[in-house]
Amino acid sequence: MVAIGKPRGTRDFTPDEMERRRAIEKKMRDVFERYGYREIVTPTIENMSLFTMKSGEGIVEETYAFNDKSGRMLALRPELTAPAMRFYLEKLQMEPKPLKIYYFGNCFRYDRPQKGRYREFWQMGCELIGSDKPEAIAELISTAYFVLKEAGLKNVQLRTGDLDILRSSIEKLGVEKADEIMRLIDKSDYEGVESLIEEKSGADEFMEFLKCRDFKSLGKFFDDVKIKRLGDVLEWLSVFGTPYILDTSIARGLDYYKGIVFEIDAPSLGAEKQLCGGGEYSLIPLLGGKDVPTSGFAIGFDRIVLALEKEGFSFPPSKEIVCILPIGGEMRKEAISLATKLREKGIMVEVDLMRRSMQKSLQYADRIRAKFAIIVGPDEWKKGTVIIKNMQSGEQKEVRKKELHNFL
Amino acid sequence: MVAIGKPRGTRDFTPDEMERRRAIEKKMRDVFERYGYREIVTPTIENMSLFTMKSGEGIVEETYAFNDKSGRMLALRPELTAPAMRFYLEKLQMEPKPLKIYYFGNCFRYDRPQKGRYREFWQMGCELIGSDKPEAIAELISTAYFVLKEAGLKNVQLRTGDLDILRSSIEKLGVEKADEIMRLIDKSDYEGVESLIEEKSGADEFMEFLKCRDFKSLGKFFDDVKIKRLGDVLEWLSVFGTPYILDTSIARGLDYYKGIVFEIDAPSLGAEKQLCGGGEYSLIPLLGGKDVPTSGFAIGFDRIVLALEKEGFSFPPSKEIVCILPIGGEMRKEAISLATKLREKGIMVEVDLMRRSMQKSLQYADRIRAKFAIIVGPDEWKKGTVIIKNMQSGEQKEVRKKELHNFL
Repeated sequence: MVAIGKPRGTRDFTPDEMERRRAIEKKMRDVFERYGYREIVTPTIENMSLFTMKSGEGIVEETYAFNDKSGRMLALRPELTAPAMRFYLEKLQMEPKPLKIYYFGNCFRYDRPQKGRYREFWQMGCELIGSDKPEAIAELISTAYFVLKEAGLKNVQLRTGDLDILRSSIEKLGVEKADEIMRLIDKSDYEGVESLIEEKSGADEFMEFLKCRDFKSLGKFFDDVKIKRLGDVLEWLSVFGTPYILDTSIARGLDYYKGIVFEIDAPSLGAEKQLCGGGEYSLIPLLGGKDVPTSGFAIGFDRIVLALEKEGFSFPPSKEIVCILPIGGEMRKEAISLATKLREKGIMVEVDLMRRSMQKSLQYADRIRAKFAIIVGPDEWKKGTVIIKNMQSGEQKEVRKKELHNFL
Repeated sequence: MVAIGKPRGTRDFTPDEMERRRAIEKKMRDVFERYGYREIVTPTIENMSLFTMKSGEGIVEETYAFNDKSGRMLALRPELTAPAMRFYLEKLQMEPKPLKIYYFGNCFRYDRPQKGRYREFWQMGCELIGSDKPEAIAELISTAYFVLKEAGLKNVQLRTGDLDILRSSIEKLGVEKADEIMRLIDKSDYEGVESLIEEKSGADEFMEFLKCRDFKSLGKFFDDVKIKRLGDVLEWLSVFGTPYILDTSIARGLDYYKGIVFEIDAPSLGAEKQLCGGGEYSLIPLLGGKDVPTSGFAIGFDRIVLALEKEGFSFPPSKEIVCILPIGGEMRKEAISLATKLREKGIMVEVDLMRRSMQKSLQYADRIRAKFAIIVGPDEWKKGTVIIKNMQSGEQKEVRKKELHNFL
């Protein structure tokens, strides 16, 4: 019957879904702003080269890319960090440091759609530009943690690691395939790692290091100088009141990460549990700019919604609607002028636009989950009153028009 | 210096710009919701055929279109009515009527960028599905009017017309090029119209009709039955308290419009003055669905912002930031724990992350337009106090930590 559907891997959101999503979004934005981040928006389309400079040519395969009429290759943005850095280089370099910016936007990937992975998806995240002090990184990580807590998630787990330490410990092994090992670690494929390094001396120690989850034991593998920065950041995390687990095995997949990295999971989501990833990175020199400390993170907004549903989160109730119903044709104008008055007071009002019978109108009020119906009848109107009906209890009451807004 | 710029005709928005845009957006959304509209979101990409079915093959030229790997032609949506109708047909047909949905989203056009016309632009609008009663159409038009007023615009002009009447009056001329005349009228090219119809009897009357701006005079051209519906809608507009001008010459360019149509202008914007256009239309049968009354409108959000700037609108002041600055290195932890406490109370707090001198820190607080600086010194801290400095007046005061939030 419908001639044209939506493209594969994309979604429509109903009013009920949007009400939930907007309520969560608002709570998350509030935390970003309390932590001193301010919103930016960048274009949905960018030059493809922005992303290949960051992630290599391989990303073209997974990106919606197309040539414009002048033959330039454009891309639907697959992520928001590279656009934010481009914007910084073009226009924000003179802003006071640290510069703290956040974004909430849609991104696109062109891989096979699967459960919980859509071709258009929403990301919220931020970048901290200009400071690499341990307390600055700790504040960034804490912001991510408290954004997720404020969204309403009960069960989240923050893991923090240090790529410099991980890379050093791979170097100590003296293997050639360091990148391959990083990739396997990123996929938590520890058997793969073991089989790749089993011939090497230090292999057992490396596997032990990968599983190390407490900072004191790190001293077994590295001297104090090497692990000091990580130790400082962890200490600052405590000052921020942010619970964490040390995780030596965070690899973060992308080459431009360096130094402190972190991930936050919702264990309730199983295999697709990662909600947030981030850390320190170096991207500006790749884009031709003057280096400056940068760190940031991205949160998968769609997964937050999923995780909240899994946790049985009680979403805020729908906004309250009042439905105004005239008795008979001659009260229609009175119903509408009453609607206008209540709308001016900020009340959400639906008024009969179908000229239906009272019975059908009340069914409509019920179906749109109106909290009250206000019945405007000629006899009451002459007296300066209307009937207000509580749609849940069925209780009816005659109320003076002037006092009506006190009841709503 | 910057290797890669943004694509031509697109924009980045700074934090200051986004604060303004979000403030306006919020006010406009509030009006939609008070009038009973609820938000939907549809994908950014759609099948190109959705738009060619609505607007003809010509639209491909002006649209960002590209083939996906399976050879299907996708489009970056040029507008939001066709997607909303597709969504309705796929999923919302069983919702209670009237169904009132609104949207706020980015759209794309692939024409030559020019002043005030961008390749990515933002639209806010709505669709009313299921009622064509005159009071329903009047409510739709009133919603548009009050959305614009609530955004803060002082000077807007609503013009309302009726395409059935306009088309009838073209028919009376007995010309073959009715579409051509509609197009010229849409461009306000009255000389073009005159030269096209000068040979016809009734040409003078037609030109007089086109310029008719009061409802009573319409009776000169048509009988009461023909103009009754327009008259009813205009009468209901008065009930809604919505000031309007009758405009017999609204053509609305697109073939799927019919019946009552309207436009709202901001005269301050000159040639690009149109902020909003809409009316009754018939699109669902084109998409293969069962016909149902539909009407709606779209507002150019970017132009609203421009018009407000032209009118000298005083945008709400930036959100208030508090900047916490420790004296010397040893007070850093205290500064951060104070920041955490204030952030928990919902206050926007920036804390020194650069380990700068007090003088430089105060300069930073000034540059980010902090309202207060809170100076955390060791002597005061021991006494349970901090120094609070009003950044505008320079006034300083010693305040007990526990009473601090009363001052902010």
